[in-house]
Amino acid sequence: MTPPPNTSTFGLSPGTLVYVGPEVAKDTTLKIVKYNEQYHEQHTIKQIKDCQISGDKPYISWLDVDGIHESGVIEAVGQLHNIHPLLLEDIMNTRQKPKIEFFNETYVFVSLKMLYWHDEMGEIEAEHVSFLLGSNYLISFQEKRTGDIFGPVLDRIKASVGKTRRNGADYLLFSLIDLIVDNYLEILERMSEELEELEGLILAGKHKDPISELYNLKRQLTLMRKYVLPLRDMLSQGLRENSKLIGKSTFPYFRDVHDHVINAIETIDSNRELLTGLIDIHYSTLSSRMNTVMKTLTIYSAVFMPLTFIVGIYGMNFDNMPELRQPNGYFYTLAGMAVLAGGLLIYFRRRGWM
Amino acid sequence: MTPPPNTSTFGLSPGTLVYVGPEVAKDTTLKIVKYNEQYHEQHTIKQIKDCQISGDKPYISWLDVDGIHESGVIEAVGQLHNIHPLLLEDIMNTRQKPKIEFFNETYVFVSLKMLYWHDEMGEIEAEHVSFLLGSNYLISFQEKRTGDIFGPVLDRIKASVGKTRRNGADYLLFSLIDLIVDNYLEILERMSEELEELEGLILAGKHKDPISELYNLKRQLTLMRKYVLPLRDMLSQGLRENSKLIGKSTFPYFRDVHDHVINAIETIDSNRELLTGLIDIHYSTLSSRMNTVMKTLTIYSAVFMPLTFIVGIYGMNFDNMPELRQPNGYFYTLAGMAVLAGGLLIYFRRRGWM
Amino acid sequence: MTPPPNTSTFGLSPGTLVYVGPEVAKDTTLKIVKYNEQYHEQHTIKQIKDCQISGDKPYISWLDVDGIHESGVIEAVGQLHNIHPLLLEDIMNTRQKPKIEFFNETYVFVSLKMLYWHDEMGEIEAEHVSFLLGSNYLISFQEKRTGDIFGPVLDRIKASVGKTRRNGADYLLFSLIDLIVDNYLEILERMSEELEELEGLILAGKHKDPISELYNLKRQLTLMRKYVLPLRDMLSQGLRENSKLIGKSTFPYFRDVHDHVINAIETIDSNRELLTGLIDIHYSTLSSRMNTVMKTLTIYSAVFMPLTFIVGIYGMNFDNMPELRQPNGYFYTLAGMAVLAGGLLIYFRRRGWM
Amino acid sequence: MTPPPNTSTFGLSPGTLVYVGPEVAKDTTLKIVKYNEQYHEQHTIKQIKDCQISGDKPYISWLDVDGIHESGVIEAVGQLHNIHPLLLEDIMNTRQKPKIEFFNETYVFVSLKMLYWHDEMGEIEAEHVSFLLGSNYLISFQEKRTGDIFGPVLDRIKASVGKTRRNGADYLLFSLIDLIVDNYLEILERMSEELEELEGLILAGKHKDPISELYNLKRQLTLMRKYVLPLRDMLSQGLRENSKLIGKSTFPYFRDVHDHVINAIETIDSNRELLTGLIDIHYSTLSSRMNTVMKTLTIYSAVFMPLTFIVGIYGMNFDNMPELRQPNGYFYTLAGMAVLAGGLLIYFRRRGWM
Amino acid sequence: MTPPPNTSTFGLSPGTLVYVGPEVAKDTTLKIVKYNEQYHEQHTIKQIKDCQISGDKPYISWLDVDGIHESGVIEAVGQLHNIHPLLLEDIMNTRQKPKIEFFNETYVFVSLKMLYWHDEMGEIEAEHVSFLLGSNYLISFQEKRTGDIFGPVLDRIKASVGKTRRNGADYLLFSLIDLIVDNYLEILERMSEELEELEGLILAGKHKDPISELYNLKRQLTLMRKYVLPLRDMLSQGLRENSKLIGKSTFPYFRDVHDHVINAIETIDSNRELLTGLIDIHYSTLSSRMNTVMKTLTIYSAVFMPLTFIVGIYGMNFDNMPELRQPNGYFYTLAGMAVLAGGLLIYFRRRGWM
Repeated sequence: MTPPPNTSTFGLSPGTLVYVGPEVAKDTTLKIVKYNEQYHEQHTIKQIKDCQISGDKPYISWLDVDGIHESGVIEAVGQLHNIHPLLLEDIMNTRQKPKIEFFNETYVFVSLKMLYWHDEMGEIEAEHVSFLLGSNYLISFQEKRTGDIFGPVLDRIKASVGKTRRNGADYLLFSLIDLIVDNYLEILERMSEELEELEGLILAGKHKDPISELYNLKRQLTLMRKYVLPLRDMLSQGLRENSKLIGKSTFPYFRDVHDHVINAIETIDSNRELLTGLIDIHYSTLSSRMNTVMKTLTIYSAVFMPLTFIVGIYGMNFDNMPELRQPNGYFYTLAGMAVLAGGLLIYFRRRGWM
Repeated sequence: MTPPPNTSTFGLSPGTLVYVGPEVAKDTTLKIVKYNEQYHEQHTIKQIKDCQISGDKPYISWLDVDGIHESGVIEAVGQLHNIHPLLLEDIMNTRQKPKIEFFNETYVFVSLKMLYWHDEMGEIEAEHVSFLLGSNYLISFQEKRTGDIFGPVLDRIKASVGKTRRNGADYLLFSLIDLIVDNYLEILERMSEELEELEGLILAGKHKDPISELYNLKRQLTLMRKYVLPLRDMLSQGLRENSKLIGKSTFPYFRDVHDHVINAIETIDSNRELLTGLIDIHYSTLSSRMNTVMKTLTIYSAVFMPLTFIVGIYGMNFDNMPELRQPNGYFYTLAGMAVLAGGLLIYFRRRGWM
Repeated sequence: MTPPPNTSTFGLSPGTLVYVGPEVAKDTTLKIVKYNEQYHEQHTIKQIKDCQISGDKPYISWLDVDGIHESGVIEAVGQLHNIHPLLLEDIMNTRQKPKIEFFNETYVFVSLKMLYWHDEMGEIEAEHVSFLLGSNYLISFQEKRTGDIFGPVLDRIKASVGKTRRNGADYLLFSLIDLIVDNYLEILERMSEELEELEGLILAGKHKDPISELYNLKRQLTLMRKYVLPLRDMLSQGLRENSKLIGKSTFPYFRDVHDHVINAIETIDSNRELLTGLIDIHYSTLSSRMNTVMKTLTIYSAVFMPLTFIVGIYGMNFDNMPELRQPNGYFYTLAGMAVLAGGLLIYFRRRGWM
Repeated sequence: MTPPPNTSTFGLSPGTLVYVGPEVAKDTTLKIVKYNEQYHEQHTIKQIKDCQISGDKPYISWLDVDGIHESGVIEAVGQLHNIHPLLLEDIMNTRQKPKIEFFNETYVFVSLKMLYWHDEMGEIEAEHVSFLLGSNYLISFQEKRTGDIFGPVLDRIKASVGKTRRNGADYLLFSLIDLIVDNYLEILERMSEELEELEGLILAGKHKDPISELYNLKRQLTLMRKYVLPLRDMLSQGLRENSKLIGKSTFPYFRDVHDHVINAIETIDSNRELLTGLIDIHYSTLSSRMNTVMKTLTIYSAVFMPLTFIVGIYGMNFDNMPELRQPNGYFYTLAGMAVLAGGLLIYFRRRGWM
Repeated sequence: MTPPPNTSTFGLSPGTLVYVGPEVAKDTTLKIVKYNEQYHEQHTIKQIKDCQISGDKPYISWLDVDGIHESGVIEAVGQLHNIHPLLLEDIMNTRQKPKIEFFNETYVFVSLKMLYWHDEMGEIEAEHVSFLLGSNYLISFQEKRTGDIFGPVLDRIKASVGKTRRNGADYLLFSLIDLIVDNYLEILERMSEELEELEGLILAGKHKDPISELYNLKRQLTLMRKYVLPLRDMLSQGLRENSKLIGKSTFPYFRDVHDHVINAIETIDSNRELLTGLIDIHYSTLSSRMNTVMKTLTIYSAVFMPLTFIVGIYGMNFDNMPELRQPNGYFYTLAGMAVLAGGLLIYFRRRGWM
C-alpha cells in the first residue's frame, strides 16, 4: 500500500529525471525487433545511439528498453525519439499510476503495471511498464528486475505463429497489454484459491487466528485494485479517442482486453466482499465460543457454590449444632446436595445452557 | 464467487478457443427448428456441415447448439456462419460476463447466464448461454449439463400457441431471454422463502449458529447479482441501439424483460440488506444472552461468596471464639445469613439484574 | 420484503394474464363518474360492456375498476379501451413496481402503490393501483381489499368543492396521486412517532430487547422506500416528457407532488439513519451494562477470595498452629480481615471501578 | 429528525392553506422598508390592504411578513401580490424543504431555514423563511417565534452603511441569505467546540457514557445537513438560470454564499465522521477496560483458588493425616503456598496480564 | 478538523476584511521579483505604494505578499491591482477552501493550502496560500508563520537554472503549485512510514492501545483530504477553461500536477482504508485475548471448584462420617482428586480450550 522508500523529489525542477523505485544493480538492455509477415530480425543493442527506430519502414519496429533506473539511458532514448521530458519522468517514475495520453497523431503513451504474486510472502509486486506507440513502431520500457516479461510475445513473433506478424504496431501493443492483463487474471485465480482454502478452515472453525492473513489478502486486493482500476478508463478512452495510430480492426481486440479488465475488477471486488464476510464469520465464531466458555463457567459456579456453602455450614465449630449429632446427618446432607445439584443441572438444561 | 478451476490461458494468442468450464462427457447436440405461422419443422443434426442456416428464407431458422466444450464444433459452426473469432472465444468462455454486441446490421451477439438453484447445497449453478441474432435466424449456444433449458419455448412453437409463431427471430430471442429471466425470479422466490424461514428461527432465538447459513445465502446473492446486474445495461443498450434486427414491435417486450431484471436486482438488494439485518440481530441475541449468563454468574457469586466466607469464619479453630460457645450461635448465624442473602437478592432485583 | 406467495409464471407465454396477489373473495366493482363544471353523474356498472368510456365527450369520464383479481374482467376492460396486453399484465401484477409509460398521444399509463399501516402488527401493506390517462378520460384500477381508496376525491367531485370540477382529466389524475402520496407522509408521521417513543425508551435504558422492533421498523422503511423511490423518477419523467395529455397548467401541481415524494424519501432515509443510531446505542448500553456486571463480580471476588482464604487457613487442623492458641487471635484475625477488605475497596474506588 | 406534530392534511384539496408548525400566540407583524441611495423609510402596517408593494417605484420596496401562522393574512398578501396558491402553501408549510423556483420574469421564490442552536438542550431549532423577489421589490416571510432575524440588515440599511443601499433588490436578497448562511457557520463553530470538548474527555477516558451525547450531536448534524444541503443546488440553480431579476453584478456575491454553504456542508460531514470515530474510540475503551477487569478477576481466581483448595485439604477431619501431626507442617504449608502464589504471579506477569 | 477559534463574522457586511487565523506578531513582508531569460532583480519593499506591478513590462513581475493578517496591507495591495473585494476576503480567510476563479481575461485567482507535518504532535498544519495570475505578472499571498515557503523557486530563478526563467508567469504559477503538491506527497510518505510502523506493532500484538494513535492518523488524513481533494477539480477546471492567461505549452505541466494530486488522493484513501483494517485487527486481538483470559478463568474454576467442594465435605464435623475413620481415607481422597483434576484437564484439552 505504501510506496517504496524513495529519493525525495521535493523542490526539484519539474521534468528532472529521478528513478524512485528499488535499487537495481544490472545494466539496461536495449533490444530491437523488426518484423513483417515475411521478415523477422531481432538483436540486442550495444550503443545507445543505435537504438533509434522510426515508422517510415516497410516493417514494424519494436524497441524494448529493459531497465528504467539509468536516467542517462532514458534521456538518450527520449532525445533520439523526440519524447516530451514529462513523459520521460513518467517512464522512470515507478509510482506513476496507469494512464494513456495522446500526442496528436505523433504517438500514444501508455503506462501500466506488470504484477507478480509471491506465494511465500503472499504479496504482490508491481513492475512499471510504459509503451510509446508510433505510426509503425513501438517502444516499450520495463523495470529490469524479474526477467523479460514480454517473452511469450517475442516467441510468438519469432515462431511466426498467431496474428501478430500479419498485423501492425497497434496489434503488437494490444498483444503486450493482453499479456499483462491475462496475468492479472492468473494472480486473481491464485488468490481466489487461497481465499477458498481459508474459507474452508474458518467455516470449520479450524483456523485459530485468521485475521492477519485475511487482512493481508485484503491489502493485496486493494493494492491490485489500485493498479487495475485505471486500466478500465484508460482502455475505454483509447477506444473513444479517434487516433489514426490505433486502427479500427484492432478495436475488437482492445474491447476484449477491456472486458478482461472489467472481469478482473469484478473478481477483486467480489473477493473483497468475501473477505469482509469471512472476517464477520470469524468474529461470530469468537463470540459464540466466548458464550460457550462463559456458560460453562457459570454452570460450574452455579452448581458448586451452593454445595461448597453447605459443606461450609457443617464445617462450622459451634458447640450446639443438632444436625451434626444425628447418626445419618452426613448421609442426608450428601443426598440433599445431590438433589440440589441435579435440580440445578436440569434447570440449566431447560434454559438451553447445556 | 471464485471461478471454476481452469486451464490457464496465459500467454496464448488471443482468439485461441479454450473451454474453461467443468468437464463434460457428452457430445454436442445440434438442433434446427424452422417455423412460420403456417409451417413448423424440427430435427437434430448429425453432421456439422448440415447446420448452416441463413436469413433469406420464408421462415424463421433457429439453430440450437447444446454443448460448448468441443472447440472443433464451435469453430465449425462459427466458420459456417461467419462469426468473429473473438465471439467464438466468448461463446466458449463460461466465465464471460453477460454482454450485448452489435455487429453492424449483420448480427447481434447476446450472452447471459441460465441459473439453477440446488436446494440441498443451497448453491446457485450458472450455465453460460449465448445468442446470435441474424435478420431472420437465431443461433443459440448452451452448456450441455442439465438438459435443454429452452424446452418450454420449443414446446410453445410446436404446439402453435402463443405469439412466437406469428413473430420474427427477435421475438424468439426475447422469448428465450424472458424464460431465463423468469427463472431468476423463481430462484429469488425460493431464496426469499428460505430467508424468511431463517428469519423466523433467528427472531425466535431458536437457531444456534445461523452465521454460516446467512453467509452462504449472502454469497449466493452476490454471485447472482454479478450475473443479473449486467443484463440491465445490456437490455437498455439493446433498446437504445437502433438496430434493424430488433423490430420496434418487440420493444415493449424487451422493456418488459428489462423491468423484470430491475425487479430481480431490487429483490437481490433488499434480500442482501435483510441478511445484514439478520446478522445484526443474531449478534444482538448473542450479546444479550451473554449478558444474562454473566448476570447469573455474578448474582450467584455475590450471594454465595459472603455466605461461604461467614461459614468459613466459624469453621476456624481458634481456642477463643465466644460465638461458638453460645447455645444459639449456630441458629443466629443461619438466620443472619438468610437475611444477608435475602437482602442481596432484593438489591439485585432492584437493579434490574433479575 | 419478500413478495407474497404466488402462482408461478415460469414458462408461460408473455402477456398471459395471471393474478399473483393475495386471494380475494369479492367481485370486481366498476364505477363510472362523469363530470364537468356544471354536470355530475356517478353510477355503478352491472355489465362489463357498459363500462366503455371515451374522451370525445363534453365532460370528464372516470372509470374506476375496483378489483384486479379477475383476469376476465381486466381483459374485457382492456379490449373495450384498446389497452396493450403487456399493460394489462402490469395492471394485474401486484408485484409490478411503480412506473410511468407514454403511449404516443393516446394514453399515459401510471402505476403505483397505496400503502396502509397496520398499527397492531407494525407492518405496511401495499395495494397495487394503476391509472390510464386518456385525452379526456381516466381509468383507475385498484385491488379490492380495504375499501375504495379514492373516496375523498369522489366526495370532492360530488360536493362540487375544490378545483377538480373545473379542471381536466390530468388534474383528476394529479388529485388521486396526491391523495396516495399524502398518505405516505401520514404513515411516515406515525412511524416517526413510534420511533421517537422507542428512542425515549432506549435512551433511558428501559427497553430490554428493542432489536427485533428496530429491525422490523427498518424493514418496513426499506419496503416503503422500494415503493416510494420510483415515484420520484416517474414524476420527473412525467414532467419532462412533453405529452399533450398533461397540460402545462397542471405542471405546478405535479411538481408539488414531486416535492412531497422527495420529502417522503428524505424522511425515510433520515429515519433509517436514526434507526441505525439507535441500534448502536442499544449495543453500547448492553456493553456498558456488561462492564458494570463484570466489575461487580470482580470486586466481589477480589474482596472475598482473600478473606475466604484467610479463614480457611485458620480452619486447618495442624497440631501446631500458634496463632490459634493466642487468646485474642480470633479478634486480631477479624480486625486484619476488615482492614484488608477496606483497603481493597478503597483501591477499587480509586481505580474508578465503583 | 421527526417533524413537529401537525394537523393532518390528508384528503384536503391541494392548495388549501394549513399551518403545520408549532402553535404561535402572537399576531403577524407587517413591516415595509423603502430605500434607495438617498432615501430611506420604514414603518409597520396596521391594515393588510396597505401592505401592497410594487416594483415600478424609484426605490427598493421590502415587505417583511413576520408570522406565517395566520392563513388569512398570508392569503391576503398573496392576493395583493398575485402569488400562486401552491407557493402560499409552501410559505406556510414549515416542513417545506429549501427550494428555489423561477416564475418567468415575474418573480423568484426562495425558501430556506433559519437555524437556532439551543445550548442547554443541545438542539437545533429551525425557522421557515421564504422570499419572493420581484424586479424592484422583495417580500420576506418568517415565523414569529424568536424575534426579527433580519435585524442586522435592517440596521445596515437604516445606518446607510454597506453596499445594500447602493444596490438592487437582488442584493438585498443576497444580504438576507448571507445572514442566514453565516449563522450556519456560527452554529457549526459551536458544535465543533462541543465536539472537541467531548473528544478530549473520551480520549482521556474520563467520560463514562458519552454515547447518548454523541448520538444527539450526530442527530443534530443530520438534521442540519437536511436543511443546508438543498441550499447548494438551490444557489447553483439560481446562478445557472438566466433570470433578469438577479443581476450579473450580484453573481460574485451569490457565488460567495454558495462557497460558504459548501464549507458548511463539508464541516458537517467531517464532524459526522469525527463522531463516528469517537464512538469507535469509546467502544474500544469499553472493550479494553473489560479486558482489564477480566484479567484482574482471572488473576485473583488463579491465585486464590489453589490456595483455598490447599487450606481446605488441611481442614479435613480424617483421623489419619500425617502432615497435620508434624510440628512444622503448618509453617511448611504456609511457605509452600507463598511459593505457589509467587510463581503464579510471575507467570501472569510474563504473559503480560499484569 | 475544527477550524481555529475566530472572530465572529456574523452580521457583518459581505466583503468586510477580517483575518480569522491564529494571531501573528510579525509585520507583513512584500517582495518583488522581476526576471526574464537575461534579466533578474529581487528586492523587498518598504512602502506599500511601491508594490504595484503590472503586466506591460518586458519581464515577468512577481509580487510576494508574506503575511495576510493585516487587513490594511491586503486592502492597499488590492486597490493598487484592482482586485475584487470578495477576493480580498478570500485571500485573508484562512478557512477558505481551495478554489480557482477566472475573471475574464484580466486575472485568474487560485487559492490552496501549504501543509506542514509536525512529527512530535503527529499533526498537520495548514497555511493559506493565494495566487493572482495576470497576463505577465503573478501576485502570491501567504501566511507569515513558518518562513517563506517559496524559497526553492526563488533560488531556482536566482540561480538561473530550470525552465522557470525561460517561461511565462503561468509557468511560475505552475512551479509554485508543483512545490506545494510535491510537499503533500512528502507528508504522505512520512505518514505512510508511521502507519507501517504501527502496523508492525499491531500485527505483532505489541501495541497496548493503538486506537487513539490510529484515530489521530485517520483524522489527519481526513483533514488532508479536505485540503487536497478540491485541487483535483480546480486543476481540471483550469485546464478546461480556455483562458489566454494559461498558455497551451504549460498544459502538460498542469496535467502533471493534476496527476500528482490524484496520486496524493489515492494514497490518502488507501491509507484510510489501511487504518480501518488496523482498527479491525486491534479489536480482533482484543477479542481473542479476552477469549484466552476467559478460558483460563473457566478452566481454573472448573478444576478447583469440585476439588474445593470435596475437601469441604471431609471438613464437615458430623459425628458419623465413616470415611474419616478409615486409615487410608485421606490418601484415597487425595488420589481421587488427582484423578478428577487430570480427567478435567484432559477433557478441556480435547475441547481445544488449552
